[in-house]
Amino acid sequence: MSTLDANWFTEIHADAGSAFSLRIRKKLVDEQTPYQRIEVFETTDFGNFMVIDGCTMVSARENFIYHEMMTHPVLYTHAAPKNVVIVGGGDCGTLREVLRHPEVESVVQVEIDERVTRLAEQYFPELCELNDDSRATLIFGDGIQWMKDAARESLDVVIIDSTDPIGPAEGLFSQPFYEDCLRALRPGGMIVQQSESPLLHPHILRAMHSAMRSAGYADVKTLQFPQMIYPSGWWSATIARKGEKIAGLREAGVVAKPFETRYYTADIHRAAFVLPAFLQQALAQ
Amino acid sequence: MSTLDANWFTEIHADAGSAFSLRIRKKLVDEQTPYQRIEVFETTDFGNFMVIDGCTMVSARENFIYHEMMTHPVLYTHAAPKNVVIVGGGDCGTLREVLRHPEVESVVQVEIDERVTRLAEQYFPELCELNDDSRATLIFGDGIQWMKDAARESLDVVIIDSTDPIGPAEGLFSQPFYEDCLRALRPGGMIVQQSESPLLHPHILRAMHSAMRSAGYADVKTLQFPQMIYPSGWWSATIARKGEKIAGLREAGVVAKPFETRYYTADIHRAAFVLPAFLQQALAQ
Repeated sequence: MSTLDANWFTEIHADAGSAFSLRIRKKLVDEQTPYQRIEVFETTDFGNFMVIDGCTMVSARENFIYHEMMTHPVLYTHAAPKNVVIVGGGDCGTLREVLRHPEVESVVQVEIDERVTRLAEQYFPELCELNDDSRATLIFGDGIQWMKDAARESLDVVIIDSTDPIGPAEGLFSQPFYEDCLRALRPGGMIVQQSESPLLHPHILRAMHSAMRSAGYADVKTLQFPQMIYPSGWWSATIARKGEKIAGLREAGVVAKPFETRYYTADIHRAAFVLPAFLQQALAQ
Repeated sequence: MSTLDANWFTEIHADAGSAFSLRIRKKLVDEQTPYQRIEVFETTDFGNFMVIDGCTMVSARENFIYHEMMTHPVLYTHAAPKNVVIVGGGDCGTLREVLRHPEVESVVQVEIDERVTRLAEQYFPELCELNDDSRATLIFGDGIQWMKDAARESLDVVIIDSTDPIGPAEGLFSQPFYEDCLRALRPGGMIVQQSESPLLHPHILRAMHSAMRSAGYADVKTLQFPQMIYPSGWWSATIARKGEKIAGLREAGVVAKPFETRYYTADIHRAAFVLPAFLQQALAQ
């Protein structure tokens, strides 16, 4: 049986009885902010790697899958996404992918902890390379309050790119927040939220579907993708739409997109919404 | 930073700089066979769990994904799979899924290490529940030699369910073995082989595609699925077909199948063949 020495970072998923480790070269940051503890490591094989409150957040090597799948499916489903809000998303990888879309006219990112973004600028500069885009506004504050105050029918897409539904992000996984988002969305608008592991957390997915439907969205769908550094290596995002079915992929737009993706394609878009039998059953109403 | 105590089994993926752990309740078996070291653990959350030469092999909780995806895609692509061979597959989970197909008339399983099967019968009885089916023949011997000796055009499907391409299974990832399989297949016959992680091992996938094409197969395709206990949590299988394109899903057969699946559906079948942009590029000829 192998033993991990001090050259490894390990996240124990106590509820799941599993753990994931990356081999580190050195610790670059260990900082307690008013909100959470942030660590940044240099790994041997995954580039720089950020950890918040002991939970893996982002590695340079494989974050592209998560960030592409949190953004392009919803942006290429909306007919004309002009005004986008990101709640959380402090590493700015989601922001970068949104800003690649020329049809987007404004993106407001509301991250509670400015230090996440400042450390990302320093240690994940590639994720922050579009932060100076004139269409982007970075706000450091409470996303729940921001959404309460948002003008009615002023947004097309809300991307909820938060930590897990325990701790500071808990309120982002609740019906009142979904209702505030619904009010702020224009007809046909969508929210998308990271929704944990299909294998380990079907109960969270089920509760999220239920809360989104109860909040008044017309349709709720989950898509899934691999995510090596998150529990089980398999992750999901859940989309809810105001007044319409989640359909209408702008395939010509995907084919002609003026930027490269490493994971997302039109075929991946369709395939990601296909759920395995056990998850279909878990989510059946 | 968390530390794993003696209550955890850890597999270090030294080449990848990552590690995966399961929390164990007790060790049930630790046995050196003529071929390899086999350990079986009782875990806290994943049921019984087999390890060979330090590498995670099978857990009771999530092996269904692997075993369904190694069998049903190829069996529902073949128009009439009558004669099937499994090379490796000692835990018998693949054998069970093959035997669920009434159209299959014979399955020969050639596993080099009888102890894998005997321990599976003891600790994974659910995987072995169809071992007494009259259509099944269990041979304990060398799959490479068996395939050399196989009658020409006598098989419809060969499932290569082996350990990684280092150590005893190395010869199963080589052009000469693929040529022997090709000779033993009837026209339209297929081989399917586990083909490692899309994220960590695209070079292995690339080499496998090349070797299968060089061996003379008409078409080679990779499908992918989540596999929590294998490196990166994301795994693949690669199919090669004799004389025909890999196409022709028997969708009516899937819909009317006389058994339940927990992962596989006709939609999952199609979705699994959709590869992300980076892997398409890696596999482009």
